Amino acid sequence: MIIIGEKINGTIPAVKEAIEKRDAAFIGELAKKQAEAGADYIDLCASTAPEHEIEALRWLVDVAQAATDTPLCLDSPNPRVIEAVFKNVEKPGLINSISEEGDKCEILLPLLAGNSWEFVGLTCDNTGIPTDLQMKLDITKSMVEKASQYGVAPERIHIDPCVLAMATDSNSPLNFTAEIKAIKALFPTIHVTGAISNISFGLPARALMNKTFMVMAIQAGLDSAVMDPLNREIMGTVFATNALMGKDRYCKKYSQAFRQGRIGQQAK
Amino acid sequence: MIIIGEKINGTIPAVKEAIEKRDAAFIGELAKKQAEAGADYIDLCASTAPEHEIEALRWLVDVAQAATDTPLCLDSPNPRVIEAVFKNVEKPGLINSISEEGDKCEILLPLLAGNSWEFVGLTCDNTGIPTDLQMKLDITKSMVEKASQYGVAPERIHIDPCVLAMATDSNSPLNFTAEIKAIKALFPTIHVTGAISNISFGLPARALMNKTFMVMAIQAGLDSAVMDPLNREIMGTVFATNALMGKDRYCKKYSQAFRQGRIGQQAK
Repeated sequence: MIIIGEKINGTIPAVKEAIEKRDAAFIGELAKKQAEAGADYIDLCASTAPEHEIEALRWLVDVAQAATDTPLCLDSPNPRVIEAVFKNVEKPGLINSISEEGDKCEILLPLLAGNSWEFVGLTCDNTGIPTDLQMKLDITKSMVEKASQYGVAPERIHIDPCVLAMATDSNSPLNFTAEIKAIKALFPTIHVTGAISNISFGLPARALMNKTFMVMAIQAGLDSAVMDPLNREIMGTVFATNALMGKDRYCKKYSQAFRQGRIGQQAK
Repeated sequence: MIIIGEKINGTIPAVKEAIEKRDAAFIGELAKKQAEAGADYIDLCASTAPEHEIEALRWLVDVAQAATDTPLCLDSPNPRVIEAVFKNVEKPGLINSISEEGDKCEILLPLLAGNSWEFVGLTCDNTGIPTDLQMKLDITKSMVEKASQYGVAPERIHIDPCVLAMATDSNSPLNFTAEIKAIKALFPTIHVTGAISNISFGLPARALMNKTFMVMAIQAGLDSAVMDPLNREIMGTVFATNALMGKDRYCKKYSQAFRQGRIGQQAK
């Protein structure tokens, strides 16, 4: 399971404030803690006003890579921002995200030629996020084809079929698991990722719903997730699911995470 | 999901003591609380010395049915105990359990003729619990056939394929989900049940493992479980899984259980 730590995101009020104040200690600590908790990538999303975004994201990159060796995930809806900040990143990371919307593929895919960067590919295009499975597969195929032109193999792609809130579409959970399976069937080496917590927008007891959905998604083949590695419950769910699926011999990783105090009930 | 409340069991020290002292208030309260929490059956297992078991189980029946209208589940490894206590039960309930071991079928199945009692059928025989899927299916088929001779249709049978601890058999979780699917494929109207918490014997953070396994088992087709309805986390997992599987339109039951304070984080 590839964990993309989601906590450094300017849509979160405390992070927004830290970005505005250029509070390097706060951001650095958040990067370090997520890395220690098991994040494989530290997502960096400035989410500031467009005219400040490049500068803010560049600052986030500097602070995060001073705090940890964990690869970074450059996150912006604007491909020009990612393009501008890309060269500041010392170690190959993840681009979040590319899709068939506008000129994202054209601007961002060339950055991935000749290195080991990976990217998150959203199954959407200029018409938005399709609800139809086949359309999501068609977008996936098209992105895989375009990526191959830059030497990017499917194992460097994390397809995000876009989890919709169950409150707005009650079929969303089963659609998502069907999408995971269909994408994996088409490209067995591709990663499938998602923001699992989207499922519970507007519902009570969101943490309960999120961790339950995580089990279902991992079982369906989800092997990457944009999530909070500091959330002991969701991390515990990831470890437990992997063990139950026979992917953690003798529950070694599960037991180790418990001994390290990373999962399970915390001592009172 | 059919919930068989497991809390009145003489193997639990406090319950053992209450049975010895004939503490009707304690047992009655435990029956009532489980019924209120959503148990469909209240399991009664005396687990005393053999010479006292009939008397103890009869007392448990009297106390439980005075405390609640919820049907009872007569639980003993000894079919003669169940046979002796059966007539004291006012309302059709569940027999736990029948198997192909010894003369259990011969003693207990006749009790189910001409009424609406149900039974838990363990997939074991005189040689023990088979590890082989086909042998478990063969025992299931044989029990279904024998039950039909007393007019007991598959929808009155809860097959328990016997969950083994993952610590002793690391394939146990995947075997169990495969068994659920195979039994349901053979008899679509049959119930499949199990003691989900067996999976985590000998492992740390058992509650985490149990609720994660519950999601997997329900997805595979588990529709009955011997469990603790007072455990908010496991109950929450059952509600969340049903909602995610599209079995709870608009998350109505999930949201209602939350409003009633039965699931989700408790207010501090």
